Amino acid sequence: MEILKVASRSNPNSVSGAIVGAVEQDGAVELHAIGAGAVNQTVKAIAIARRSIERDGASALKVIPGFLELEIDGESKTAIRFVVET
Amino acid sequence: MEILKVASRSNPNSVSGAIVGAVEQDGAVELHAIGAGAVNQTVKAIAIARRSIERDGASALKVIPGFLELEIDGESKTAIRFVVET
Repeated sequence: MEILKVASRSNPNSVSGAIVGAVEQDGAVELHAIGAGAVNQTVKAIAIARRSIERDGASALKVIPGFLELEIDGESKTAIRFVVET
Repeated sequence: MEILKVASRSNPNSVSGAIVGAVEQDGAVELHAIGAGAVNQTVKAIAIARRSIERDGASALKVIPGFLELEIDGESKTAIRFVVET
């Protein structure tokens, strides 16, 4: 499953395009976000992707959010992991 | 369906308890969040609720995020709406 890393500076429209592409190809995609800004952009991107996928008549996207411990520059960070699937 | 309004100051553990209670009672609950901090607390609360519900052997929570236009103090604001259901 493809993993998309989303930052607070990420463009929700671009991320939503990547979500739609990955879901069409693999049926699911995983997104990682660290911090409130990144989580917010991820949720906006998923909401946009959902709208676009449902407009195309496909079945609704399901989202499963969870926690994930990541090591970044030797520091342990708690990320939010979103699994998005049809 | 019960509507929970989540703020950036909301405690994710308390919100998660409210989610679990509402889902056990009605099978679904709706959460509204305005702004990155509130969206982040909402996602954390859903992730905690999911963990607790799955530990109890119930089926996984599904989340459906979308946009919502709200009028607050005469001003139009775009909120994120999360529908959480089993």
